[in-house]
Amino acid sequence: MASVRIREAQEGDCGHILRLIRELAEYEKLSEQVQISEEDLRADGFGGNPFYHCLAAEVLPAPGEPQGPRVVGYGLYYFIYSTWKGRNVYLEDIYVTPECRGQGIGSKIIKKVAQVALDQGCSQFRLAVLAWNQRAMALYKALGAQDLTETKGWHDFCFEEEAMRKLAGK
Amino acid sequence: MASVRIREAQEGDCGHILRLIRELAEYEKLSEQVQISEEDLRADGFGGNPFYHCLAAEVLPAPGEPQGPRVVGYGLYYFIYSTWKGRNVYLEDIYVTPECRGQGIGSKIIKKVAQVALDQGCSQFRLAVLAWNQRAMALYKALGAQDLTETKGWHDFCFEEEAMRKLAGK
Repeated sequence: MASVRIREAQEGDCGHILRLIRELAEYEKLSEQVQISEEDLRADGFGGNPFYHCLAAEVLPAPGEPQGPRVVGYGLYYFIYSTWKGRNVYLEDIYVTPECRGQGIGSKIIKKVAQVALDQGCSQFRLAVLAWNQRAMALYKALGAQDLTETKGWHDFCFEEEAMRKLAGK
Repeated sequence: MASVRIREAQEGDCGHILRLIRELAEYEKLSEQVQISEEDLRADGFGGNPFYHCLAAEVLPAPGEPQGPRVVGYGLYYFIYSTWKGRNVYLEDIYVTPECRGQGIGSKIIKKVAQVALDQGCSQFRLAVLAWNQRAMALYKALGAQDLTETKGWHDFCFEEEAMRKLAGK
């Protein structure tokens, strides 16, 4: 089996990351929602004050194979702030392309995010998952996460742009 | 009735903000969870690259009243990142001290956050609420927010520090 490496994404990976973001959105049948461009990803993640950080999961070719490494998954995270505990990490997206699932790549990404969070002095690492994705929910629980919606009744709310414009009188 | 102003918090407000953070935690019977100090709030919110932003709700004295303005609520937010739409806003905490509720101060804070989000080119403004807090849930819905947990099945997951250490092998 080919070996997999989890590494920090570089600016040159943005095309691959966008391809995987679109794959994830298509899987959720919501690809028309993806408004972001490769240019946005480059500008927002690789400037002096990045809005996000990203890990790339890369399959390395076996010795003698002609093709180079392939980016087959990603984990995109940023820092959030708790008024109880200070700086924490939020994993916005985690995705592995279907033909590479079942090899533990998702778990490797989660472990790497946990390492980064600890290295940065964070005491929590949060993420959200859709209830239909029972496989992901089971994985996160098996890795030690708590389901705050189940155990504490957390509900996520969102104001979309139109609602914000009404609120702001714009 | 005294008038209320919503303004950007200044570094000198951190003592008031911490007092209100503790009030909120006591209300939730979780005050032992508050590990943050006034010093942390100053360093994290008012340096060159702030980890959070904060609005202060201030009651202004009526003419002739001897005391100065009083900070009676706050809204603490930061920027998050959507891989569909780019930069968005997350309201981590919103709190108004009990004796000042019912005057629309919470709504004023929400409206101001929506203005900031639009001014910064954000297309979403998110927050979480606990299911027992039906009053807050009703307010956010009345103001135009969607409950993503109810409508889309979002579940929040969290790895606490011990779980992260296991994951990271530390």
